[in-house]
Amino acid sequence: MTAEEIHAAIYSMGKTARNAAHALAQLSPEKKSEILKAMGQSLRSSAPEILEANKLDLAAGEEKGLSNAMLDRLRLDTARIDAIAGGIEQVAELPDPVGEELEHTSRPNGISISKVRVPIGVIGIIFESRPNVTSDAAVLCLKSGNATILRGGSEAIHSNKAIAKALQSGGEPAGLPEGAIQLIPFTDRESVKTLAGMDKYLDLIIPRGGKGLIETVVSLARMPVIKHYDGICHAYVDKDADLDLAISIIDDGKTQKPSVCNALETILVHQDIASSFLPQLAKRLDTRKVELRGDAATCQILPTATPATEDDWTTEYLDLIVSVKVVGDLDEAIKHINEHSSQHSEVIITNDTQAAQRFQSEIDSACVFHNVSTRFADGEEFGFGAEIGISTDKLHARGPMGLKELCSYQYRISGNGQLKDASRQSAL
Amino acid sequence: MTAEEIHAAIYSMGKTARNAAHALAQLSPEKKSEILKAMGQSLRSSAPEILEANKLDLAAGEEKGLSNAMLDRLRLDTARIDAIAGGIEQVAELPDPVGEELEHTSRPNGISISKVRVPIGVIGIIFESRPNVTSDAAVLCLKSGNATILRGGSEAIHSNKAIAKALQSGGEPAGLPEGAIQLIPFTDRESVKTLAGMDKYLDLIIPRGGKGLIETVVSLARMPVIKHYDGICHAYVDKDADLDLAISIIDDGKTQKPSVCNALETILVHQDIASSFLPQLAKRLDTRKVELRGDAATCQILPTATPATEDDWTTEYLDLIVSVKVVGDLDEAIKHINEHSSQHSEVIITNDTQAAQRFQSEIDSACVFHNVSTRFADGEEFGFGAEIGISTDKLHARGPMGLKELCSYQYRISGNGQLKDASRQSAL
Repeated sequence: MTAEEIHAAIYSMGKTARNAAHALAQLSPEKKSEILKAMGQSLRSSAPEILEANKLDLAAGEEKGLSNAMLDRLRLDTARIDAIAGGIEQVAELPDPVGEELEHTSRPNGISISKVRVPIGVIGIIFESRPNVTSDAAVLCLKSGNATILRGGSEAIHSNKAIAKALQSGGEPAGLPEGAIQLIPFTDRESVKTLAGMDKYLDLIIPRGGKGLIETVVSLARMPVIKHYDGICHAYVDKDADLDLAISIIDDGKTQKPSVCNALETILVHQDIASSFLPQLAKRLDTRKVELRGDAATCQILPTATPATEDDWTTEYLDLIVSVKVVGDLDEAIKHINEHSSQHSEVIITNDTQAAQRFQSEIDSACVFHNVSTRFADGEEFGFGAEIGISTDKLHARGPMGLKELCSYQYRISGNGQLKDASRQSAL
Repeated sequence: MTAEEIHAAIYSMGKTARNAAHALAQLSPEKKSEILKAMGQSLRSSAPEILEANKLDLAAGEEKGLSNAMLDRLRLDTARIDAIAGGIEQVAELPDPVGEELEHTSRPNGISISKVRVPIGVIGIIFESRPNVTSDAAVLCLKSGNATILRGGSEAIHSNKAIAKALQSGGEPAGLPEGAIQLIPFTDRESVKTLAGMDKYLDLIIPRGGKGLIETVVSLARMPVIKHYDGICHAYVDKDADLDLAISIIDDGKTQKPSVCNALETILVHQDIASSFLPQLAKRLDTRKVELRGDAATCQILPTATPATEDDWTTEYLDLIVSVKVVGDLDEAIKHINEHSSQHSEVIITNDTQAAQRFQSEIDSACVFHNVSTRFADGEEFGFGAEIGISTDKLHARGPMGLKELCSYQYRISGNGQLKDASRQSAL
């Protein structure tokens, strides 16, 4: 396709999505649940077609020499399709975020102002290899009243198309507006550029994938981007910490699932307890096969630790590796974190309430924990029911992003003829 | 200056601003008020220096051949400086938005989650000729705990520098952190580009000025931009409208201050009342010297109206001109507005509550009014105390933007040793 053809095709999808968004915003909560359930049903009954399509992607992936990990992300089977459909049915049951009155003000002049939650409009989702994102993202956007334009990676294009088709063909008889869920049916690079420039029709763009993808979208986008960057999460073990508790929280945060963004990457330890604490910590982490990379003070206490380089303090390992540093006091810990973290999630382990309060108010991160594992930085754990990701941005949505964060608001103002300057008119 | 020198200078300001932001976030409400009052005082006592600097700008402006309107925007006198200082003192008295608990959740596993309002961090403000923005913007950012980097237009550079100096020299002895308010002391175009690319230090950028400036910032910015675009505001006069009320509201909205973004630009009239209403409206607007540009149906009823072109439906006149169109029904009015408005402010005039509700829920604009002038789309009128502008964006802040909208939030989570998977540890 030429750049012009891509441009025309995507702008035409944008226009359709905008019309769909107006229709979606008016659907009742019951109607949306009904549509979602029909979509879940359709996904299950389309399993044979989806699995056929998935085979094409897997074959192409093998030919291209994709790694086993990549192929596994790509692979669908009946159980995975069932899980995706189950996810849709779960979202159908969640409370509807649209239409809730967030604030109400009555002004002295008699004007009444109501701040009401409304959908954002049209959301673009750019993602990489996992085909389940086609359904997960579209469904959360639909529940929050938004139209979506999806642009998946080339590796999963057949699977994505089959999933999108199942959602559309299941949803439309139940009342899904035409164009509410659209997948760009080609994967030319130009399509990302066109989508990111289409602020006429797109209100928000969410890149879901690696740092490279996010960087590309950030530099091209003319509309707001909500970024889900990496998590360089810290634990600080204070001098007044319960050391057993600290070891449990660090073990859980580092090793329970090292590949996720809320896993721990750096441990800071107060100097007063370092020599008693670090050997105990090393013993536990050794049973988990975690490599320790320490600063000079740490390596002195733990001679088996690898010396850390400057890069270690800003690396998201997503692996069984952790960097460890001894700090002089709480201030030094706060300073180190504010300078090196990715503002995702941090934890202090201490029995000193004042130290905990200072840590929580002085650390500029989305989630700041006290005596609890950072693995709880998650929409489900926060009670959001579902999440589209964890925002490392500070505007609009910060931290776990659920249905409410996929909404905007508007003011509805009522009066009985109030004028900015009534005197001008009575003077007529 | 070379591009490299500009880059180095602005990045150095960014780093200082980031440090200042951490300090600012910890200041008590009382301390911030104290600093603001000292800044107001300093501005008054620096009036002679500010007026001297302003003379340089005015002389340069005259030499450059700036219009009288431009020169008037640039001009300061004792009364204007007094008004700016008064504005600072007013902001000092407003409730502090930082630290308020927005939500509190206790999860079944005993974890307690507190969502707390915190400052955004470092905000870049790019503005054009009015020197008062130097103070107005910096002061609102300071009250909300944010550091600011200001980049004003070349026409006002001497005045801006003098105002920034007065704010800094007044604020610092009272406890203003160094670098909390910084003005870029040069106006090379490269500085806008550098600022817009500095997502390492800048959390948000707000362009205050014309469409051209906003467009430039939008295409360059790597961080969130909050846009204050134009207001193509509509009034729809329903068939069940009180016609006298409609005339008053349109007169107020169009003529009380035509140069502002919440002024009316297009009037839609239901066909059933058009022939009785339009002559009355024309009579009133004639006394205000307003030019009417009508569609065919309007021109048939009002032969003196100018025929409207397609462009008239998307023009923000900011002048004594209004476009008028007869519509078949409420649906056509809603459709026209959703297609042509800038999503700023619209009003329906009707006694039919159901029609008003449909209008308010189906129109996708920041402020949707019923029987009240659109001139009330304003932070002061909403009770915000002050506003930095009216956002035409849908993310983060929509409509009037006050101190709360200059803040982000963070989650502070407390527990007593909860782990994502405790079974792994007890199995050790």
